[in-house]
Amino acid sequence: MYQIEEKFPVTEGGVCAAGGFKASGVYAGIKAFMHTGNDGNESPLPGQKNDIALVLCDVLCNTAGVYTSNKVKGAPVWVTKDNLAKTGGKAQAVIVNSGNANTCNGDGEEKARAMCALVAEKAGIKTEEVIVASTGVIGQVLPLRPIEKAIGPLYEKLSYTGNLEAATAIMTTDTVKKEYAVTFTAGGKECHLGGMAKGSGMIEPNMATTLNFITTDCALSSEMLQKALSETVQVTYNCLCVDGDQSTNDMCMLMSSGLAGNEEISSEGEDFDTFREALFQVMANLTRMLAKDGEGATKLVTCVIGGAPDRKTAAVIAKSVIRSPLVKCAMYGADANCGRILCAMGYADTDCDVTKADVYYESAAGRILVCENGLGLSFDEDKAKEILSEKEVEIFADLHMGSASSVAWGCDMTYDYVKINGDYRS
Amino acid sequence: MYQIEEKFPVTEGGVCAAGGFKASGVYAGIKAFMHTGNDGNESPLPGQKNDIALVLCDVLCNTAGVYTSNKVKGAPVWVTKDNLAKTGGKAQAVIVNSGNANTCNGDGEEKARAMCALVAEKAGIKTEEVIVASTGVIGQVLPLRPIEKAIGPLYEKLSYTGNLEAATAIMTTDTVKKEYAVTFTAGGKECHLGGMAKGSGMIEPNMATTLNFITTDCALSSEMLQKALSETVQVTYNCLCVDGDQSTNDMCMLMSSGLAGNEEISSEGEDFDTFREALFQVMANLTRMLAKDGEGATKLVTCVIGGAPDRKTAAVIAKSVIRSPLVKCAMYGADANCGRILCAMGYADTDCDVTKADVYYESAAGRILVCENGLGLSFDEDKAKEILSEKEVEIFADLHMGSASSVAWGCDMTYDYVKINGDYRS
Repeated sequence: MYQIEEKFPVTEGGVCAAGGFKASGVYAGIKAFMHTGNDGNESPLPGQKNDIALVLCDVLCNTAGVYTSNKVKGAPVWVTKDNLAKTGGKAQAVIVNSGNANTCNGDGEEKARAMCALVAEKAGIKTEEVIVASTGVIGQVLPLRPIEKAIGPLYEKLSYTGNLEAATAIMTTDTVKKEYAVTFTAGGKECHLGGMAKGSGMIEPNMATTLNFITTDCALSSEMLQKALSETVQVTYNCLCVDGDQSTNDMCMLMSSGLAGNEEISSEGEDFDTFREALFQVMANLTRMLAKDGEGATKLVTCVIGGAPDRKTAAVIAKSVIRSPLVKCAMYGADANCGRILCAMGYADTDCDVTKADVYYESAAGRILVCENGLGLSFDEDKAKEILSEKEVEIFADLHMGSASSVAWGCDMTYDYVKINGDYRS
Repeated sequence: MYQIEEKFPVTEGGVCAAGGFKASGVYAGIKAFMHTGNDGNESPLPGQKNDIALVLCDVLCNTAGVYTSNKVKGAPVWVTKDNLAKTGGKAQAVIVNSGNANTCNGDGEEKARAMCALVAEKAGIKTEEVIVASTGVIGQVLPLRPIEKAIGPLYEKLSYTGNLEAATAIMTTDTVKKEYAVTFTAGGKECHLGGMAKGSGMIEPNMATTLNFITTDCALSSEMLQKALSETVQVTYNCLCVDGDQSTNDMCMLMSSGLAGNEEISSEGEDFDTFREALFQVMANLTRMLAKDGEGATKLVTCVIGGAPDRKTAAVIAKSVIRSPLVKCAMYGADANCGRILCAMGYADTDCDVTKADVYYESAAGRILVCENGLGLSFDEDKAKEILSEKEVEIFADLHMGSASSVAWGCDMTYDYVKINGDYRS
């Protein structure tokens, strides 16, 4: 089975793993305010999770971003892009709320700028040095009052170990927090790179991702940060699909404090390669976590396409398989229906011939060949059922067309996905 | 709400409505044979539906076809295309089985040709004058023995009123038979046009469709038949989406016996326009039936995009909305979440600006505006729930960009879709 290589030691700290980054999260009561007009800030009921997060760096950071390609973009996406354009790719803070996407609601841009201003005033930085993101329901007005009331406690609670509070605050239908961090060496200095992610449904990143905030103390120019981020998004978040719905608010930000003390990486070379590999490890692991926690999912499904003429072709086919509702339902039912796989490979948007493929199912329970040379085989159904009943399963297809490969991450489709999204707004 | 115009009188008879066409359907026991080796032909258990259909015309017919664009094509698709190439677009019979798609199984082409030969021998026609189609599980060997045993009874039962038996035989997870026919006048003669369709899951036609067989007694050249079919598929079957999975076996065939006695339509003109309008009425109604009977569906969902710069743009946006799993789940839950609609409009693969759109929900229970000028509104949630709780609902968006419009047909996504496809093969 495909494993993400653990090239670099994993460390604690998520978005605070890198030197200079503090974070916090509190309960502002945004949803409660929307439903009742009560801002709920003073007395959160038990079980009410944080809904607003702040990340603040001790210094101004070179910053790169990748954004949704949905033509309907959330106001925070526009404001963040505009801020980074004004500062020439520098930022010092991130504010994120869940519970409301601040999208398609008329005054979204004004509200997003107000959120930046609240942070800037507290932190003594410029408004345009703040990254703003929102996630939650689309098309409803974002109430500013609970955020205004929360900004004080949020700033007070900032800490170099506040990553968990922040990672909780950005969750919507997520059932687990998503954090990952590594240490590596660049320019002879120990560096840190880590981040947090949210996302569960409405996930089909394309040139973008769900909400992801990654920080490092490794010094890189804004240009090299952007290059590393853009390239790595292609082989991580863009290879993820929960349901094929691409969010309006996708955003992946990468901030560098430079506090590791290495000489700034401003061109390609050994240090840049190391950084990019570390970034891949962090982003691929966050991607995997997002897939595994897909809305209603009972299992992680990975599709690996090997023997492809090139990586992009392999990626297009892998994602077509992972995206197929029929494949997803069959994985839920542990039904080793290879016809579903071949069908989804066949309608993938690529010119590649997929009719010579061998297809295997694999998990901790073993590996089974279900299709050879494009033809379905008779196989041990009980064994196949056992393999597909594991919590992490892999669909592997060898195209016998070349030596390139790619992986895509997804999950099964379940009754709970339907249930969650039959009444998302309540 | 959008209604398909009933320009021509509806008539009975489905695929047998047109002069010269007989049909039949019997139970061959294909699935039983695959599971047990018992061909089950002699004594079908109660509730076992027909699984093989035959259509035979009294004369050789000009014939047009449109096929799946999935690169993995079922053997019957290849054989039918090859047969029509050999005859220069003529056919006299159609044989169709359900229970096995005869796809990705090694000897599919041989078996498909054998099915044609069985029909040809009985009917005294050429093998290449037979259209063959199969639907069901992919990647398993099609047993020929039950088909060989069924061909006698199938031929004996052929009748000018056998359309219902045939329409039953081509069903898989369909819960209702799909037939529609009209009468119209061309060249001063009364003509008939009707057909049958199957399809429930694995539906996202693209330059093709599910299994559809349409017959007419109106005389047209093969070229004009193909032109009418190809154009009408674009605005009917290609505007249908149940789950976004495009079948390997999609096929839509249109046969003309010419027995109405009109002068053959061999160029554009009034008669061709009339024929095309009649074909639209038949195919649009079959499309609507396919959507309404989508796997696990509890309701028909229609999306109409108006005020578009051109029809194609409207169609791309309408289909993006209809395809969205999040929209489909919201429709199941009668949740008037306009954010889901705006999001799916935004990621539609078109350059059109959709941010000025007004969005309405409509059904027999009324109509409600939920989004104006791209911005979500406050609205009467109880009224919206009532509207979306009907069995047929419409999502209407006016883009305010022009005067073109298009419609797409689909359904909601339910627990039953997951259930059906969690264990499709059993």
